[in-house]
Amino acid sequence: MAMYVVGHKIPDSDSICGAIALAYLKNQIGEAAIATRLGDVSPETQFILDTFGFEAPELKMSYAGEEVYIVDHTEKTQAPDDIDEATVVGVVDHHKLGDLTTSTPLECWIRPVGCSNTIIKMMYDFYGVEIPKNIAGLMLGAILSDTVIFKSPTCTTADIKCVEVLAEIAGIEDYKAFGMEMFKVKSAVEGTPARDLVMRDFKDFNMSGNLVGIGQLEVIDLAVFDDIKADLEADIAKLKEEGGRHSVFLLLTDIMKEGSQMLIASDDEGIVERAYGVAPEQSRVWLDGVLSRKKQVVPPLQDAFA
Amino acid sequence: MAMYVVGHKIPDSDSICGAIALAYLKNQIGEAAIATRLGDVSPETQFILDTFGFEAPELKMSYAGEEVYIVDHTEKTQAPDDIDEATVVGVVDHHKLGDLTTSTPLECWIRPVGCSNTIIKMMYDFYGVEIPKNIAGLMLGAILSDTVIFKSPTCTTADIKCVEVLAEIAGIEDYKAFGMEMFKVKSAVEGTPARDLVMRDFKDFNMSGNLVGIGQLEVIDLAVFDDIKADLEADIAKLKEEGGRHSVFLLLTDIMKEGSQMLIASDDEGIVERAYGVAPEQSRVWLDGVLSRKKQVVPPLQDAFA
Repeated sequence: MAMYVVGHKIPDSDSICGAIALAYLKNQIGEAAIATRLGDVSPETQFILDTFGFEAPELKMSYAGEEVYIVDHTEKTQAPDDIDEATVVGVVDHHKLGDLTTSTPLECWIRPVGCSNTIIKMMYDFYGVEIPKNIAGLMLGAILSDTVIFKSPTCTTADIKCVEVLAEIAGIEDYKAFGMEMFKVKSAVEGTPARDLVMRDFKDFNMSGNLVGIGQLEVIDLAVFDDIKADLEADIAKLKEEGGRHSVFLLLTDIMKEGSQMLIASDDEGIVERAYGVAPEQSRVWLDGVLSRKKQVVPPLQDAFA
Repeated sequence: MAMYVVGHKIPDSDSICGAIALAYLKNQIGEAAIATRLGDVSPETQFILDTFGFEAPELKMSYAGEEVYIVDHTEKTQAPDDIDEATVVGVVDHHKLGDLTTSTPLECWIRPVGCSNTIIKMMYDFYGVEIPKNIAGLMLGAILSDTVIFKSPTCTTADIKCVEVLAEIAGIEDYKAFGMEMFKVKSAVEGTPARDLVMRDFKDFNMSGNLVGIGQLEVIDLAVFDDIKADLEADIAKLKEEGGRHSVFLLLTDIMKEGSQMLIASDDEGIVERAYGVAPEQSRVWLDGVLSRKKQVVPPLQDAFA
């Protein structure tokens, strides 16, 4: 029986590229594996797939009765809905330990680094499997995305070293230029419906019993949002009601200015000041230096809810 | 700030030896670490410590505000009571994924092998740190204990290879003879109060909301229990009431005959037949071939409770 290798809902580049890279590795060491995905591929990810000549993995939502290798999350809200009816054989992740549990022993490759693909590279090294040129490109793209070309505070020396090795294998001389090209694709937001933008990189968290959704859009200039900010704000307010959420936050991240404007739809807007020490005005707040949802946005919010 | 490296409550040899071996490794790679323990050292573990010239790690029950590296579990029932007030920086484990969660990214070295010390050996290899002779001995003892000298179905080829390398480093020619010596120490139960025996290797599990305690005593001949079985049965009945548990099971494991007699104190004895397909008689049942609580006892019971 082949295992499925799958990232989180609303997959980002780390989830998609990681699933392909890890499924390849598993097949090389004699464990049959199929990469799948839990949702649509983002323009950024499509750009990476196209650049290195890959199709998107098969869309597959249900895993009851199957063996599953989980990529880039351990939160049940981000996992397949029927994950409790599947057998989780492994996890590769770089986030805090979430509420996923299993009924049998498994392998977990979890490290406090900037990207799951950096850990997948460690797995290739552990098993002594050579990384094909085009897969190295996928992994490189995922790491440059997750670390915001090394600007994110989640970026570690392990990620940087990994990118240097992968760029060599992939034959990419100027990987920072490749990263900027990728973020330019990501910054093309005009013409896209507000809901699609809000959901492009959106994660739900269970914070002390409150459902909290946090979306993030990383661009090279926040001016791209000037004409659509009101639409985005109307949409997160709607999203909050639809999902019975306590709050929905949307981070508009300027990767050049290195900070994020947070748009807020919340039952208790005061939670934002308690978390970050800055008072929102008109349900917006600028968080200077904040690039990472995982490291700079989620933990203080979680503490404020606790 | 030094991190504490600590195994589970009612520590077994894997928890104690693993804490010492991992703390040493962490110190070698420049991360200050102190091995601690959450309870008394068993006679078997004391034998291992004495053989290789170690003191037991410091007893420390509270970890609020501290950094903690968790060894050999991810179940909150087995962790320090105030683990939610500590920062869990890492986990090394070989069990199913439990309900421990964290609020920050961490490292998890979890593998489906027979012993946490086999994974700690992988960590030494990863960091390129040489294992000192006496620490190799500790790790060897833990692996021979957890795998019941390779007889347990939890034992993998990775454990066997690891033992062979560690025996070489520790300078132990006949490691199986060393293992038998260890199990002889473990089999010396006469004169020990029933409660001490029941609690010697006892773990609580949350099974679909029911608190279930499972103890295990591994000996080389079940005859050692002939005179004290009634005392043990009276004690597990008491323990069930004291802790508000649904059930307490005590496995008397004969490592030579390769099977376990299960003593039962339960609100619903039928759960045992539903789990293992064998009906208990007088609150006892022989489970042929059953050596591993983790692999052969817990999963069917969990399924029966679900």
